[in-house]
Amino acid sequence: MSHDKGRVWSPVITPFGADLAPDTERFVTHCRWLLEQEVGLAVFGTNSEANSLAVEEKKQLLDALIEAGVPATRLMPGTGSCALADTVAQTRHAVAKGVEGVLMLPPFYYKGVSDEGLFRYFSEVIERVGDDRLRIYLYHIPPVSQVPLSLALIERLLKAYPKNVVGLKDSSGDWSNTQAVIEQFGGDGFHVYAGSESFLLQTLRAGGAGCISATANVNPGPIARLARTWQAGDADEQQAALVRTRKIFERFPVIAALKAATARFSGSEQWARLRPPLVELNEQQRDELFALLDDGSFDMPGLKQS
Amino acid sequence: MSHDKGRVWSPVITPFGADLAPDTERFVTHCRWLLEQEVGLAVFGTNSEANSLAVEEKKQLLDALIEAGVPATRLMPGTGSCALADTVAQTRHAVAKGVEGVLMLPPFYYKGVSDEGLFRYFSEVIERVGDDRLRIYLYHIPPVSQVPLSLALIERLLKAYPKNVVGLKDSSGDWSNTQAVIEQFGGDGFHVYAGSESFLLQTLRAGGAGCISATANVNPGPIARLARTWQAGDADEQQAALVRTRKIFERFPVIAALKAATARFSGSEQWARLRPPLVELNEQQRDELFALLDDGSFDMPGLKQS
Repeated sequence: MSHDKGRVWSPVITPFGADLAPDTERFVTHCRWLLEQEVGLAVFGTNSEANSLAVEEKKQLLDALIEAGVPATRLMPGTGSCALADTVAQTRHAVAKGVEGVLMLPPFYYKGVSDEGLFRYFSEVIERVGDDRLRIYLYHIPPVSQVPLSLALIERLLKAYPKNVVGLKDSSGDWSNTQAVIEQFGGDGFHVYAGSESFLLQTLRAGGAGCISATANVNPGPIARLARTWQAGDADEQQAALVRTRKIFERFPVIAALKAATARFSGSEQWARLRPPLVELNEQQRDELFALLDDGSFDMPGLKQS
Repeated sequence: MSHDKGRVWSPVITPFGADLAPDTERFVTHCRWLLEQEVGLAVFGTNSEANSLAVEEKKQLLDALIEAGVPATRLMPGTGSCALADTVAQTRHAVAKGVEGVLMLPPFYYKGVSDEGLFRYFSEVIERVGDDRLRIYLYHIPPVSQVPLSLALIERLLKAYPKNVVGLKDSSGDWSNTQAVIEQFGGDGFHVYAGSESFLLQTLRAGGAGCISATANVNPGPIARLARTWQAGDADEQQAALVRTRKIFERFPVIAALKAATARFSGSEQWARLRPPLVELNEQQRDELFALLDDGSFDMPGLKQS
């Protein structure tokens, strides 16, 4: 991975038609716009409603991106499901396409599972995929998955599979955890991404790799710019501006807010649709979001024409 | 549903081979033994490690039961997944086989979802399956799913789909919730099952339907007997005995303990295997479990010969 190109990834939101089927064409168009903003495509993440998609739906979307000429090295699809067979199938498929890496949730139905159980799970996946090209970014997102990945587990996986376990996304929102992961494992061989651009500068200064962040769907340019120029004199100012924008989105159910903004700035109302159990913003929330974005002179430049 | 036959259901444990594939033959044999003990088969529940199985694996196991002559009316498969398409596919398949009903988890990846979102989800499933024979038992298990089903949601679903929403399994472990659901919705058209036989007598006395319980995998006969004779003079004694046995299993990770006991009493060590992220009991736990079971003169009669 080139660090210059790989510091910011967007967990790409997924557009749905009136029948709730993924809108492949709109998805490809949005991915192209994100690439122009110089962020990578962490398709099938939490913000992509990936777990509301069937395995086959995700495979088809990934195929469509590759067929549309999206470079596989700019793709980091989420491939972790609850069932071993599903995770293996999605991971194999992604690896065969030559993706930069896969972002892997732990199995998330059972709670309070042991490190031994999680180790066995990831081991089975790695052994069954059985491909030297497999590069796993572990996905630590306890607020949603409710299944944390401990430092001891990471250490054990790294020791057993140093070539396959190459990084982690920390969406705990707990900087002390991110810092501990970077200090203990960060370096050339292990890339630690913050789960929010609010921690981007801190992460890069501590030796982390960058961020994979919801808001990189709507504010990709400025986030990518900070990742590129984090050693410049205005880095703290840039960071403060990113936090201001992020805080607007965080006042609302985030995925619905990302989609509402994308609908508005693309001019395609269809973007506002979510798959149940998630729901779109109501009218009042939408008006409030748009007013706050206008106050902050927020824009998604080039989206309408893309 | 005949209440005399349908009061106790076992969320059937799933046997795995050395390659972690479901052992279909062993599964069918175990289901036959459970039917002899007069409990129904709530296959693909939490204790079945259902979410560690791919959709196709579950379809094949259900087909195998039907082909083996298991009456579809004694089947209540779990069909709820995170993705709408997966839930619809499994539910359609089960309904086409003529099952008594399906036990349906809410989508469980996102937390803090709204009643509106969950209503839309279940509505979509019901509309897409589009079959008058569809009978849904809602599966309320907040300790695991982390997505509770509120009284307001149940009411709304019942009002919209009175023929399709026919009951609920309450695995909250909170008797006041079970009681509230029975009081508000229980009756001929809506069957409320406790998620543990520890609440069986209370549930039946309050007007509930019975229980769907982990321990019905290992202690089915005595649980079914209380369900059959709950108005007899010794009902409280029977209930106390059930609780004593249940408490033994609750001292351990329950699914691993159910499988360890089944391995021992069937004489098939293979039963002890779980799919990751779950793990089998360690030696010390197993010895402790067996000692406690022996102290209580616990048995699984007829299992070895079955």
